[in-house]
Amino acid sequence: MSGERRTLVIALLADFGTADTYVGVMKAVVLSLCPEAHILDLCHEVAPQDIHQAAFLLARASEYCPAGTVHVVVVDPGVGTHRRVLAVEAGGQRFVAPDNGVLTYVLAEAGDYRAYSVERREHFLPHVSATFHGRDIMAPVAARLADGLPIEAVGPAVRNGLEAIVVPRPVAVGDALEVHVVHVDRFGNLVTDLTERALRDWQEEKAATRVVVEAGGRTVEGVRGAYGEVAPGELLAVVGSAGCLELAVNMGSAAAELRLGRGAALTVRGGR
Amino acid sequence: MSGERRTLVIALLADFGTADTYVGVMKAVVLSLCPEAHILDLCHEVAPQDIHQAAFLLARASEYCPAGTVHVVVVDPGVGTHRRVLAVEAGGQRFVAPDNGVLTYVLAEAGDYRAYSVERREHFLPHVSATFHGRDIMAPVAARLADGLPIEAVGPAVRNGLEAIVVPRPVAVGDALEVHVVHVDRFGNLVTDLTERALRDWQEEKAATRVVVEAGGRTVEGVRGAYGEVAPGELLAVVGSAGCLELAVNMGSAAAELRLGRGAALTVRGGR
Amino acid sequence: MSGERRTLVIALLADFGTADTYVGVMKAVVLSLCPEAHILDLCHEVAPQDIHQAAFLLARASEYCPAGTVHVVVVDPGVGTHRRVLAVEAGGQRFVAPDNGVLTYVLAEAGDYRAYSVERREHFLPHVSATFHGRDIMAPVAARLADGLPIEAVGPAVRNGLEAIVVPRPVAVGDALEVHVVHVDRFGNLVTDLTERALRDWQEEKAATRVVVEAGGRTVEGVRGAYGEVAPGELLAVVGSAGCLELAVNMGSAAAELRLGRGAALTVRGGR
Repeated sequence: MSGERRTLVIALLADFGTADTYVGVMKAVVLSLCPEAHILDLCHEVAPQDIHQAAFLLARASEYCPAGTVHVVVVDPGVGTHRRVLAVEAGGQRFVAPDNGVLTYVLAEAGDYRAYSVERREHFLPHVSATFHGRDIMAPVAARLADGLPIEAVGPAVRNGLEAIVVPRPVAVGDALEVHVVHVDRFGNLVTDLTERALRDWQEEKAATRVVVEAGGRTVEGVRGAYGEVAPGELLAVVGSAGCLELAVNMGSAAAELRLGRGAALTVRGGR
Repeated sequence: MSGERRTLVIALLADFGTADTYVGVMKAVVLSLCPEAHILDLCHEVAPQDIHQAAFLLARASEYCPAGTVHVVVVDPGVGTHRRVLAVEAGGQRFVAPDNGVLTYVLAEAGDYRAYSVERREHFLPHVSATFHGRDIMAPVAARLADGLPIEAVGPAVRNGLEAIVVPRPVAVGDALEVHVVHVDRFGNLVTDLTERALRDWQEEKAATRVVVEAGGRTVEGVRGAYGEVAPGELLAVVGSAGCLELAVNMGSAAAELRLGRGAALTVRGGR
Repeated sequence: MSGERRTLVIALLADFGTADTYVGVMKAVVLSLCPEAHILDLCHEVAPQDIHQAAFLLARASEYCPAGTVHVVVVDPGVGTHRRVLAVEAGGQRFVAPDNGVLTYVLAEAGDYRAYSVERREHFLPHVSATFHGRDIMAPVAARLADGLPIEAVGPAVRNGLEAIVVPRPVAVGDALEVHVVHVDRFGNLVTDLTERALRDWQEEKAATRVVVEAGGRTVEGVRGAYGEVAPGELLAVVGSAGCLELAVNMGSAAAELRLGRGAALTVRGGR
């Protein structure tokens, strides 16, 4: 992460999947305008138009990206309508994305940020289609930012009124805590909105040395240190790699076992 | 795209999918022979052995690739039989591909090209398998071309008789135009063979200020500027990112809605 | 592969799939610590926790990787338990992987190797989670190895007791040979454990000029030179790109046709 060994990293997050050439074409545009770029594929398989999923994945992934990374986030159901395209500097990284809430987690966590409305057409491709601003606007603007264009050159500063999504948060319900599934990963792990820190604070407040999670009619006792601490096929709770409470099945799928998906509410209770 | 900042881009298009290491191994071969190469993944999920789809995707993607890009196109049902491998220079880019029609659109659009039969075994891997010429012949030849090998060094010039596929084109049927679905993308958008220019020319000829598309028993009025111009779930026609007329469903799938796939014929009618 | 044109290649093999950002985050960590790295995606779609498949794919792919490649292999059902993480030098390449048998083929084929237990925490990320050692331990250690860290600096040498999987091998059954499906690829090709060399040796021993394969109640005569030597839809035997006997269907899927998968036993008989 030293200045001397700077690499121009352009990170892509999109809902295009990989069955088409949409992502490939965005990369082609980036390499045409910034041949030294290292392209970092964060994920191209966000569910189509799923802004919530993209917002969560972007926040959890960008904290591991090199300083100076330029992100291109193309989950853009409003493409071609009046929604803005934003260029934002936050937390030492830059983000080119539609103004649809996909930056909600990133901006909340950064606290401080500078946002600009991407409007100067000289930085776009010469022909701008109505349906693919990832290729025609976002990729070229990101390539130019990586290549040294100052962020304020993309268009006017945006002072307020950025779109945001409603981010689920744990809710106290009597003595218990209602938490929510914010992501289901490929292994069927159910990632909740309860961070490790929030869990600890709540345990302290309740003087609870033990935690019990209720989900899908099942009860899970204790928070484990690793999947392998229970037998294969067994359900467990663990603080996962996103730093949040997860339900998992060792060598299996908690989502399948419990028939739960994103948005599902779980109950966390304390004990001694 | 300046000469000074040249990057060696090798673009891959294949039907290998990503569940195996076939694509990874081709990249390994490229990096072994040309360590400075930037590998550009255009798409690896062409339907198995689907030359038509690959030909279409290659043409629409390569127009966004940097000048000098070397393409490796491995959709190759005839591998190990007497089909040739070609190296072609067209439109400032180079293409290494089996001689099976996969270059049809690219060559038709370039007009001018130089084609060579890839035969000089000193440019191949030492051992050539019967089933994976992408790894053993095409990747190493592409790496050497990117690395400076003159294209005429790969083998004899091919003057004529390149294989070609039959490319669908719009057909006038009385006062209407029959157009064809040439690609269905991940979002279920139905991309047709009617380019924006051809549509405008036809409208002018018919003095049609309005366009009506009939497809799958449904009628779509007008060509919209963006998906978001209609309500979610509603069908629309739009000039998509390939520069062709598309049928789409805002936030949905036209392919599912209309139960149409590639090859389906739609009817375009004019009105005032 | 010359020393002068050295590229730092870090190859990834994982069972994470690409629907999440797990692979993307590992790449982000690599680029943060070794900005000059070329990241080589070998495969991210190993079946979840399938050590056998990963071990096979790794061996067949790594032989095509540039000298000096550092591999990160994350198929790690035991993450967070007491299983070790290894750093191994074998065959001119290095491998960072859990000690769970995933290196079995590689080490058997290399013969000679040096193995170390990855323990020095100063090379890890500052915070090590219980569930994602690919990100927190293996990616950073691989990046540092690529960047020049001597392998013995990762931790103590491991002299013996590496975990290994049982690798299937052809078994003589009377005059016949029982062989086993070790991999099913995207095309439905059934790759067996019978190498070309072992097949030839066996034919010589049996003075068999012809080979007949029995599989799923069907009989296949002869070993073809290419898929295209039989009619589309027809079953054939061929020495595939892994250098092993494969059953395939030209333009189709042998796995679907024969309803066989990995582990299935086939019978090879000789004839004249």
